[in-house]
Amino acid sequence: MASGPPVPPDVEEIKTAVNTALGRQPGTVLFTNARIVNVITGNIQDGPVLLAGRLIAGLGDAVRGATAREVVDLGGRWLAPGLIDGHVHLESSLITPGEYARAVVPRGVTGVVCDPHEIGNVSGVDGIRWFLRASDRLPLDVWIGVPSCVPSSPLETSGARLGLAEIASFLDEPRVVGVAEIMDFPGVLAAREEVLRKALLAETSRKVACGHAPLVRGQALHAYLAAGIRSDHETTEVEEGLEKLRAGCFLMIREGSISRNLSALATLVVSRHMDRIGFVTDDRLPNDLLEEGGVDVLVRRAIRQNVDPVLALRCATWNTARHFALSRRGAIAPGYLADLVVLDDLQEFRAGAVYKDGRLVADGGRLRADLPLPAAAGDAVRNTVHLPRLSAASFRLPAGPGQVRCVKLVPSQLLTELVWITPRTVGSEIVADPNRDIAKLACVERHGRRGTVGVGLVTGFGLRNGALASTVAHDHHNLMAVGATDDDILVASRRLAEMGGGFVVAAGGQVLADLPLPIAGLMSDLRLAEVRARLDRLDEAARSLGVRIPSPFMILSFLGLAVIPELRLTDLGLVDVMAGRLVPLGA
Amino acid sequence: MASGPPVPPDVEEIKTAVNTALGRQPGTVLFTNARIVNVITGNIQDGPVLLAGRLIAGLGDAVRGATAREVVDLGGRWLAPGLIDGHVHLESSLITPGEYARAVVPRGVTGVVCDPHEIGNVSGVDGIRWFLRASDRLPLDVWIGVPSCVPSSPLETSGARLGLAEIASFLDEPRVVGVAEIMDFPGVLAAREEVLRKALLAETSRKVACGHAPLVRGQALHAYLAAGIRSDHETTEVEEGLEKLRAGCFLMIREGSISRNLSALATLVVSRHMDRIGFVTDDRLPNDLLEEGGVDVLVRRAIRQNVDPVLALRCATWNTARHFALSRRGAIAPGYLADLVVLDDLQEFRAGAVYKDGRLVADGGRLRADLPLPAAAGDAVRNTVHLPRLSAASFRLPAGPGQVRCVKLVPSQLLTELVWITPRTVGSEIVADPNRDIAKLACVERHGRRGTVGVGLVTGFGLRNGALASTVAHDHHNLMAVGATDDDILVASRRLAEMGGGFVVAAGGQVLADLPLPIAGLMSDLRLAEVRARLDRLDEAARSLGVRIPSPFMILSFLGLAVIPELRLTDLGLVDVMAGRLVPLGA
Repeated sequence: MASGPPVPPDVEEIKTAVNTALGRQPGTVLFTNARIVNVITGNIQDGPVLLAGRLIAGLGDAVRGATAREVVDLGGRWLAPGLIDGHVHLESSLITPGEYARAVVPRGVTGVVCDPHEIGNVSGVDGIRWFLRASDRLPLDVWIGVPSCVPSSPLETSGARLGLAEIASFLDEPRVVGVAEIMDFPGVLAAREEVLRKALLAETSRKVACGHAPLVRGQALHAYLAAGIRSDHETTEVEEGLEKLRAGCFLMIREGSISRNLSALATLVVSRHMDRIGFVTDDRLPNDLLEEGGVDVLVRRAIRQNVDPVLALRCATWNTARHFALSRRGAIAPGYLADLVVLDDLQEFRAGAVYKDGRLVADGGRLRADLPLPAAAGDAVRNTVHLPRLSAASFRLPAGPGQVRCVKLVPSQLLTELVWITPRTVGSEIVADPNRDIAKLACVERHGRRGTVGVGLVTGFGLRNGALASTVAHDHHNLMAVGATDDDILVASRRLAEMGGGFVVAAGGQVLADLPLPIAGLMSDLRLAEVRARLDRLDEAARSLGVRIPSPFMILSFLGLAVIPELRLTDLGLVDVMAGRLVPLGA
Repeated sequence: MASGPPVPPDVEEIKTAVNTALGRQPGTVLFTNARIVNVITGNIQDGPVLLAGRLIAGLGDAVRGATAREVVDLGGRWLAPGLIDGHVHLESSLITPGEYARAVVPRGVTGVVCDPHEIGNVSGVDGIRWFLRASDRLPLDVWIGVPSCVPSSPLETSGARLGLAEIASFLDEPRVVGVAEIMDFPGVLAAREEVLRKALLAETSRKVACGHAPLVRGQALHAYLAAGIRSDHETTEVEEGLEKLRAGCFLMIREGSISRNLSALATLVVSRHMDRIGFVTDDRLPNDLLEEGGVDVLVRRAIRQNVDPVLALRCATWNTARHFALSRRGAIAPGYLADLVVLDDLQEFRAGAVYKDGRLVADGGRLRADLPLPAAAGDAVRNTVHLPRLSAASFRLPAGPGQVRCVKLVPSQLLTELVWITPRTVGSEIVADPNRDIAKLACVERHGRRGTVGVGLVTGFGLRNGALASTVAHDHHNLMAVGATDDDILVASRRLAEMGGGFVVAAGGQVLADLPLPIAGLMSDLRLAEVRARLDRLDEAARSLGVRIPSPFMILSFLGLAVIPELRLTDLGLVDVMAGRLVPLGA
């Protein structure tokens, strides 16, 4: 099954569609007795839909009496356009693009706009090229925004740097829709030339500069948008959303694994904004992807929150397609690609058969289409864990006078607090203190560039014994570890180096559980269900060591993100986020 | 006054806008006490609007307390985005693009999407290049769709041919928005490869293939749209419009001089279609342009027909800008170009001051901006009337047995009827018969290509004496004449050759009135008011010769258009439009 490139059909396909519409030749598929969901005009009409290969030749009264090689009687079920997710970091699901397609296509998702920001931070241009190859010819359209903020911060060591030239090198690709979320809003507000030029690159290519502006309002919002940035997906409050909509911003409402904004924002999904809202998932962890789904989650939940079902669908189809100028996508209309989902129940948005480019690709919740072989990957993608020479001594913290800074987890949030504590010491060293829930926190540069190691303390995991380590650590994706002993941090780190990245739980000098993520240290080659099972075993192993918080690896992966308050740790050391600088452990 | 090229602002302009929005530097203009018309979300908000050069830096609460070099107190008047006309044949107004700007900018029009179909038919690639130059750096954005149907018909001799290579040569131009109206819908429905490839050229350039599908409905409509054609501006009936909207077509509602469709279609302008309708003028004759205006006419009349004023404005701003992906145009929003119109009265849409790119360009109905010098034009544009050697004998019709075909005008319509008459003869010749309102009709090839002359008969002008001749004759723009005597047709034709094209009324061997149209035989160098005055004198002269119909030159200009039923005359002879072929005068 090949989706074919996301470019216009060729002239022979068009001829066939014209001749099929006019009844000069039979179609390939004729759906009869459909309730056709028209997301353009907001109505539902009964009638047939006629396909000519990849294309919709015609529908409704215009094709009554048409013939086709295959007739599919929908018996009054709904036929909707395939869903398009407007903003996804696919790496967060820990699987390849092909495996992602297997997960979401049976749910009625036929397109995703990805920001390969994570693999970009690890593998740079090579990583994005691999992502383009690995997402080609799937039964899912994978569009790409070029990551705009690699590295995200000067207070860390990333694996790559994407400057203006590197970003520009992707903008002529047909599957590239523009420049992805410009997270560096402080840079925009400081009128820093490089970031402004990144936004302009998208505009000069007639593509989209995407935004990321959490709680940015008032004059800051207007300044941010003046740069030509056209969307935001970080909105959390109704008034903030309304202000952004009025300022011309395309509002992407997000329901991720971590940030869930739909329930707060569903009241904005009304006819007044019917062309200005898109639905996105941003980040979906493997368990949520399996159990809840992809962007279909938003449609289902929006309807439950009393959004008109056709309007909810519009936000996940037509609006996103128009925002990104995705030709012939996002509606059931003549000449559009036949990306279609059959629904037993519109209110519940439960997908039955799914068609991509006119072919049945999924049914009964299972992918029917074959996936292409995995894309080949060179060392820049497959061999990305280059640790400095480590020993237990690498994680030592020399004792000093007075109190020290400690990262304090905030339950159910990505925020941390900076707390000052008097550490436990043994000899001349500061050590973990499980009785007070204080563990070592380490960040090891793993891109083979600086060989730097940051060490600090964290409270909140509940870890009594052993260590957890990960090569997923936003946004630099260095090796991040939390441990009760330096020895176990070392064991876990060495295992990560052997596996080429992933997640590990170790204790007593042994590895208790692991999940290899050999693709950039971020993604598995395994099937989603297997990934999820191994994550469960990792969580179980962590719990056996005393960890009380849910999703400890997800929490760990954000402890190095130097843009979320208050205290973080990168390979360069502790970062006081509010002060925007590296700080020592002590005063 | 230079509008600047219609590309993104440069990085210095953006920096200035960001810094101005944040209050770090004063703006260029601050409008206070405005009622800001927000066409995006459909509301009107009170507040200031702050400009930074060409750009809107911010508005409303976000810029309260801002300072600027110039403060303009609007005293509660409305501020709306400048209007954009989605489809115009500017040549129909008989003036240059600069003169067109003088006419429409003071009315609040700041952008037009032109189809230079007429000059394309006369002067080909050179004509369109001239049009691009002549419409550059005006206080009006002039966007261009590349004419798709040059020549329009094989039954005529045009001055040029625009094939795929010629069309493609324009598609990378920043001001080119796509391929203009694909009038050859029979070619599309016949799945003719060349016309399908023209539509695909637009799509592969990520631009728009525009449509023209009068009364095309049902399976023919779906077949037409399957070619990737995305709009229509020929709709005349509500049900037809609804069908097109549902099929995904962007519906352009037209109020031209000849075809006026708004009153029939205004009921379609409702919130359900709020993003799918654009307003266009198509063709506006000089008197209508002067007295009624450009696309502002549609806004005013739509409001009178009870369309919500902000929605009416949306159809002439935001929707058209989004349809053609006109970056930073069509709304009052941060980062958008400051193309603004001050309204004393929103209901009446009466423009006061007009700002283009942040500068005052018109006020009190008068253009304040200087226009650039006329664009230089070579022979392909300025020297286009190349008649064959003519004498009175060129227009002779030999008498034969039996009845002959005659073109019969239908009052107030462009349609003609084919009638059979017994002609008056003198000697061996058929001659005009003023007592029965039968005149000679001639079409002389004027592009210096074939030297062909078609001659026939016409009834309905009321001409008793003399002749009228024109080099405006859709779409081939050969010399078209109607006369009571061959001698006066000859006199008028010779005068046209001397003038390089235009309109002439001659009688008794003398020229009674004329209007030179030296640019491609289509457009004047004169001011609009002067053109209009000379047209009045031409009409008066025609009336003095017995002509009873209004706008005889407009009627004459359509008698050569071989696609409107029933009988037409081109330089190749009489065309039976329903039969689609040339026919002799006699049976």
